[in-house]
Amino acid sequence: MTSGRIHNFGAGPAVLPLAVVEKVQAALPNLADSGFGLLEISHRSGTYQSVIDSAVARVRRVLAVPDDYEVLLLQGGASLQFYMTALNLLREGECADFLVTGGWAKKALKEAQRVGPSAAIWNQEAFNSVPMNGDYSVRSESVYMHYTSNNTLYGTQYHHLPVADHLVLDASSDICGVALDVGAHDVIYAGAQKNLGPSGVTLVILSPWAVSRVGDDLPTMLDYKTHIAKGSMFNTPNTFGIFVLDKVLEWIEDNGGLAASIRRNLDKSGLLYAELDRTDFWVPHAEESSRSVMNVTWRLANQDLESVFLDEALAAGLGGLKGHRSVGGIRASMYNGCPLESVEALVGFMVDFEARHG
Amino acid sequence: MTSGRIHNFGAGPAVLPLAVVEKVQAALPNLADSGFGLLEISHRSGTYQSVIDSAVARVRRVLAVPDDYEVLLLQGGASLQFYMTALNLLREGECADFLVTGGWAKKALKEAQRVGPSAAIWNQEAFNSVPMNGDYSVRSESVYMHYTSNNTLYGTQYHHLPVADHLVLDASSDICGVALDVGAHDVIYAGAQKNLGPSGVTLVILSPWAVSRVGDDLPTMLDYKTHIAKGSMFNTPNTFGIFVLDKVLEWIEDNGGLAASIRRNLDKSGLLYAELDRTDFWVPHAEESSRSVMNVTWRLANQDLESVFLDEALAAGLGGLKGHRSVGGIRASMYNGCPLESVEALVGFMVDFEARHG
Repeated sequence: MTSGRIHNFGAGPAVLPLAVVEKVQAALPNLADSGFGLLEISHRSGTYQSVIDSAVARVRRVLAVPDDYEVLLLQGGASLQFYMTALNLLREGECADFLVTGGWAKKALKEAQRVGPSAAIWNQEAFNSVPMNGDYSVRSESVYMHYTSNNTLYGTQYHHLPVADHLVLDASSDICGVALDVGAHDVIYAGAQKNLGPSGVTLVILSPWAVSRVGDDLPTMLDYKTHIAKGSMFNTPNTFGIFVLDKVLEWIEDNGGLAASIRRNLDKSGLLYAELDRTDFWVPHAEESSRSVMNVTWRLANQDLESVFLDEALAAGLGGLKGHRSVGGIRASMYNGCPLESVEALVGFMVDFEARHG
Repeated sequence: MTSGRIHNFGAGPAVLPLAVVEKVQAALPNLADSGFGLLEISHRSGTYQSVIDSAVARVRRVLAVPDDYEVLLLQGGASLQFYMTALNLLREGECADFLVTGGWAKKALKEAQRVGPSAAIWNQEAFNSVPMNGDYSVRSESVYMHYTSNNTLYGTQYHHLPVADHLVLDASSDICGVALDVGAHDVIYAGAQKNLGPSGVTLVILSPWAVSRVGDDLPTMLDYKTHIAKGSMFNTPNTFGIFVLDKVLEWIEDNGGLAASIRRNLDKSGLLYAELDRTDFWVPHAEESSRSVMNVTWRLANQDLESVFLDEALAAGLGGLKGHRSVGGIRASMYNGCPLESVEALVGFMVDFEARHG
């Protein structure tokens, strides 16, 4: 812990590497010796153009984005992409298929249904697993299939690539934290506030096919072609958020790149799942095959102890552990910025908690 | 100048008071002693709820917003509001009237025309003035009239209230910098990045009439009712940007409130216009009755000297003065965060420049 910072297991906006926070602090009064503060510089300046160029280049490098794909940095979060993706890829009356593995996928489906008869082709109300590839069949009339790679609320995650001719992915909660074959997808979007930086920036990656689907005369700000043509600067972007995203990606690159990031996330979640499997004192939510490396959700066998657990954890410097109301209990989010020491501290606390209350 | 900061006359994202920048720096690793960094705290936490509550309360106080009006803090900038306002206030086929005083109003009109036959009822291609109230007539079928109170590109500004039954205002570039009768308007929207903070936050103020106009089944993220019902937190907002906006408004309140802010802006622009009127060496763009207190635009009588002016100004620590390509020449933006000393330094430089090149 540094300067009163606690171990932060919040689901987002989530913990960042302290080194990134310190670089942001340093740039605030004066960005790159330009004389202009980070929040106070024109997005049309050369100094800022270098920032957004760097951010886009890092996204391309870290995720090995194919050269003919577009990389956009927009506003509005995944929630706006739920509608934008459907509006851009579907003509009035056309439909897409959805794998509904949680609340976010449900919301994405709802927005797509404004354009045409999109539907869930897999839906499991317990939301404690993701479908295997034999568990659903894509409709022939469907233009694309949408899935959510990691489900923050439930702590489930795909460990395989779903199969459809055209895949649209909401990767908000595991982008740059797990392996991802960008070229196997047509649209990938992700709010930045979990693995990539602060809230208010949305990464959108588009294949040539996706771009070719975009119709004419869409509302300007909802039209992917607007943002492609203007390099994500049709209007003033979230200049600060893009700077932070660039610094998070720089930190990933400086610390071994995506492979090392994946390794660290496996180490962290492995440690925590081992503790959850050690004793019946804990009751993990997700089925073993669908366990998320980013968000681990569990109940206590004695649910009356859960509020005690949360209170004692906070007193011990472990914050953000309250489960989402849809599952209840405990949730530990361990995105890219969460250090192994935080998880070690959590597991140490859990062992001690069981000894005292078990 | 502090730590290499130059006098910043950029049109936006624009200069902030250094005191605000320093408060942001301090909160980054640890917000309000919560142990969570400013970028790293859940928008669902009590600590963050206090931030957004404070920001909304300050907007209400500083602008004297009527109690029955809604105050929202959204994403996407004025550019998204161009479409959202029309989508929410007009039914398919209905229209609004537009006073087109520059490029931004033109863009707003274009988005409204996606919904129905909205039209410009005033349009002057030189864009060096705003209309007086006798200069246009509102169409009887028009649901509202839209205007842009200050035109960044051209340096023009209304110094009177336009007249229509229902007024919609893009106040992006003079919000909290001039007197504003909120209760005389039905919608006011403003990107924050000029007078209120960083880019990526959009202030939207809605009258009860505006809310009553909102139809059913709009795309969730484009529906004002979504954001009203959820206190601007239907999805993760730009948590950082809202914090900075709160700090800018705190700075305004701590420095005499809106009245003092208006006074400072009049003093700054008065000083610069006096210099522009002193000699024919300078050629101001805006007609005198429409001069903006926020953005002052001018050419040099000898336009060949303009690039010399900009180079020498930058060398003298005066930045962000290049005019927008639509007018060319020089533009000095002097929003709330711009101190009088910066304008004094600019005018001193101008006097000297004329002496050397006149």
